[in-house]
Amino acid sequence: MTMLEILARKKMGQELTREEIAYFVKGAAEHTIPDYQLAALLMAIRLNGMTDRETTELTLAMRDSGDIADLSAIPGIKVDKHSTGGVGDTTTLVLAPLVAACGAPVAKMSGRGLGHTGGTLDKLESIPGLTVSLSVPEFIDQVRRIGVAVVGQTGHLAPADKTLYALRDVTSTVDSLPLIVSSILSKKLAAGSDAIVLDVKTGSGAIMHTLEDSIRLAEAMVRVGTLAGKPVVAVITGMDQPLGTHVGNALEVKEAIDVLSGRTEGDLLTVSMTLGGHMLRLAGLVSDAAEGGRRMWDALNSGAGLQKLKEMIAAQGGNPAVCDDVSLLPQANVIRTVTCGRNGYVRSMDTMALGLAAQEMGAGRMELGDQLDYSVGFVLSVRVGDRTESDTPFCTLYARTEEEADRAEKAIREAVRFSDEPCPRAPVFYAIVTSEGTWRLEDKA
Amino acid sequence: MTMLEILARKKMGQELTREEIAYFVKGAAEHTIPDYQLAALLMAIRLNGMTDRETTELTLAMRDSGDIADLSAIPGIKVDKHSTGGVGDTTTLVLAPLVAACGAPVAKMSGRGLGHTGGTLDKLESIPGLTVSLSVPEFIDQVRRIGVAVVGQTGHLAPADKTLYALRDVTSTVDSLPLIVSSILSKKLAAGSDAIVLDVKTGSGAIMHTLEDSIRLAEAMVRVGTLAGKPVVAVITGMDQPLGTHVGNALEVKEAIDVLSGRTEGDLLTVSMTLGGHMLRLAGLVSDAAEGGRRMWDALNSGAGLQKLKEMIAAQGGNPAVCDDVSLLPQANVIRTVTCGRNGYVRSMDTMALGLAAQEMGAGRMELGDQLDYSVGFVLSVRVGDRTESDTPFCTLYARTEEEADRAEKAIREAVRFSDEPCPRAPVFYAIVTSEGTWRLEDKA
Repeated sequence: MTMLEILARKKMGQELTREEIAYFVKGAAEHTIPDYQLAALLMAIRLNGMTDRETTELTLAMRDSGDIADLSAIPGIKVDKHSTGGVGDTTTLVLAPLVAACGAPVAKMSGRGLGHTGGTLDKLESIPGLTVSLSVPEFIDQVRRIGVAVVGQTGHLAPADKTLYALRDVTSTVDSLPLIVSSILSKKLAAGSDAIVLDVKTGSGAIMHTLEDSIRLAEAMVRVGTLAGKPVVAVITGMDQPLGTHVGNALEVKEAIDVLSGRTEGDLLTVSMTLGGHMLRLAGLVSDAAEGGRRMWDALNSGAGLQKLKEMIAAQGGNPAVCDDVSLLPQANVIRTVTCGRNGYVRSMDTMALGLAAQEMGAGRMELGDQLDYSVGFVLSVRVGDRTESDTPFCTLYARTEEEADRAEKAIREAVRFSDEPCPRAPVFYAIVTSEGTWRLEDKA
Repeated sequence: MTMLEILARKKMGQELTREEIAYFVKGAAEHTIPDYQLAALLMAIRLNGMTDRETTELTLAMRDSGDIADLSAIPGIKVDKHSTGGVGDTTTLVLAPLVAACGAPVAKMSGRGLGHTGGTLDKLESIPGLTVSLSVPEFIDQVRRIGVAVVGQTGHLAPADKTLYALRDVTSTVDSLPLIVSSILSKKLAAGSDAIVLDVKTGSGAIMHTLEDSIRLAEAMVRVGTLAGKPVVAVITGMDQPLGTHVGNALEVKEAIDVLSGRTEGDLLTVSMTLGGHMLRLAGLVSDAAEGGRRMWDALNSGAGLQKLKEMIAAQGGNPAVCDDVSLLPQANVIRTVTCGRNGYVRSMDTMALGLAAQEMGAGRMELGDQLDYSVGFVLSVRVGDRTESDTPFCTLYARTEEEADRAEKAIREAVRFSDEPCPRAPVFYAIVTSEGTWRLEDKA
């Protein structure tokens, strides 16, 4: 077998064998196949596609290209959650403590922010003292002890994905369904989970801009997960505006605490409860997601979720007092609240532009290795569909300098469009995809 | 403009602009664009194609990526000939002297053999003393003086093609119509010719195996040549068996001398006369190709062609006496004639396998830089359609050792298939493509 034969077959639109897929994935992980041959293959896959069988083989070969976390020492079914990436989306910090409080083990490896989307690890690190770098025994021990840990990647997981993802980024082959599916699922499977709940975002801030593309991605993930022997459920949620109102690392931690304290409702809470309900069902604790959702509400109302978050923060070396006094979180130099400045209705938001505005303020990295400012970001006071007067609060900026606040205000004002006519609210839920089928939901907003 | 934008547009099947094409061609020539991005673009072009306008822009940008030979000091219309590559195909050595003898200047830059196909430069260098390395002034002076020169590439022609061709070879993107067309035409245009006659091979030893693909290639070459302002005529000829009977460098020189001496007829002669007739028409010396063919015959019968070959050999430092005594050419150690060994009919030949057998004997390079043995090769005594008895001569092997002769005999016997039933002869001509249209020809064999 040679890489040239594999290229020729995919170029002709043929289905690659398990051996062929294993060959190039190994070559990608070990850097024994030149980048130009991998790049040509990625483009051939982008244009000629892959069958579900091929995508499954690719996922499994990428999973097997490095270490596989062994979570068997943790009793129970470990359900992971993955989001395709959004803005103001801190569901992990809300649902992980609630799901753990309901009795399902949450052994979660998370990622860092890149580009316009935030990352759970960065948000957690804004909590004074907290570490996300646990050894595998520490990680497992914490989950056994308190039921929840959210940490950085342990071990050398899916190295083939590192090579291929870096090449996709520079060859315009990011938007390939089989490549997206195998990249996400291989890492989740290598992280040792037994089942996965996916939050597939759709809209202006999402990897998939249209609902049809998002559903296609979700269905492919569910099919391939099923073929790989792991149950996958996907919830398709809107990213036509930030999920929560807070964008920025410490700000999003504050919003998660507000939600767990019962002080804040809204889309972040709704989505977290729904995803958590599905996690509880896959964990085998409830018979359906609706019952899972009720359990999540019980854990919220009793304060058990907030208590679990405190335990997790303390276990990972952070100061749990932030949960009672959010002013212990990093505070910005410049805080400025601005008004809408016009009568009308909020028509739409360019969510990606909002994410980039937060990145510019210092909340996200422009390049790998950049230092973050955990305190910066903004809180949006309006949602799509809101009616506004000239003096209605528009947003509060948390910036390092007045100049950076000016720049961010300008970018945010450009990203939020108004209308003189009433505008519909942006839906939160669009569809649920399971191995049994796809259900499209009514607008719940 | 960035390479990522160009990749994204071609990936989406969009037509690239002149500026975009110029950008990546410049980057290829100057090695400022990484190979992996060029490789991904080549695959996107292979799968999504290019319009004639794009292919023309690509051809011109590649032509302009290096030097352009200035042949204006040579009076008359310079017509070049290019073959897509065959086995036992030494038309250049037959037609260049004949065309020059008819009064059209032949200022030809040729190539070396690679893989299963031979190269005119290697054949010429088998003539004792002859050099193909002329400076540009020497080259132009020789054509002005005697009307013909066949030399290696002078100057730094189409460097972008070097980069892209090397990448195509290792990314399975050789078989792309726009990439083949632009590669061939850019080099021919940079070589300074005013018009081009193409010999597009079809069959088991050709780059295009089917007639329809060969016609598509020929039509694309003619369209793009016309758009680039240079008349192009393509003749589609059969490569289901070697064109001549001789395969190997000195052996093919001998066959060319035999043809020019009137001792040998057959497909090599017929194709050379037809291509030469079209060259004379494009050179403006005759009004149609048929009259051009008659002039070629006159030059053959009068001995003017052989005389012109002698002049060219002498001008390039070689010994012209080889034209009167072919035993002055390099002679092989081992010469062995074998018989067919069966009654029947020659059904077909795997021409590529025959070319590879000659390469294995030492007539061709396995790798760039390999030393050739000019004396080795073989002469086939049978053609497709021939009736054979057990003792009919099959071929004569010219080898370095008995072992190599054994190996070659085995390979040649495997490449030539027999049948008990009568078999049709293999056609020589299939079609002629000009800017006025495509004419399919009857089997003339």
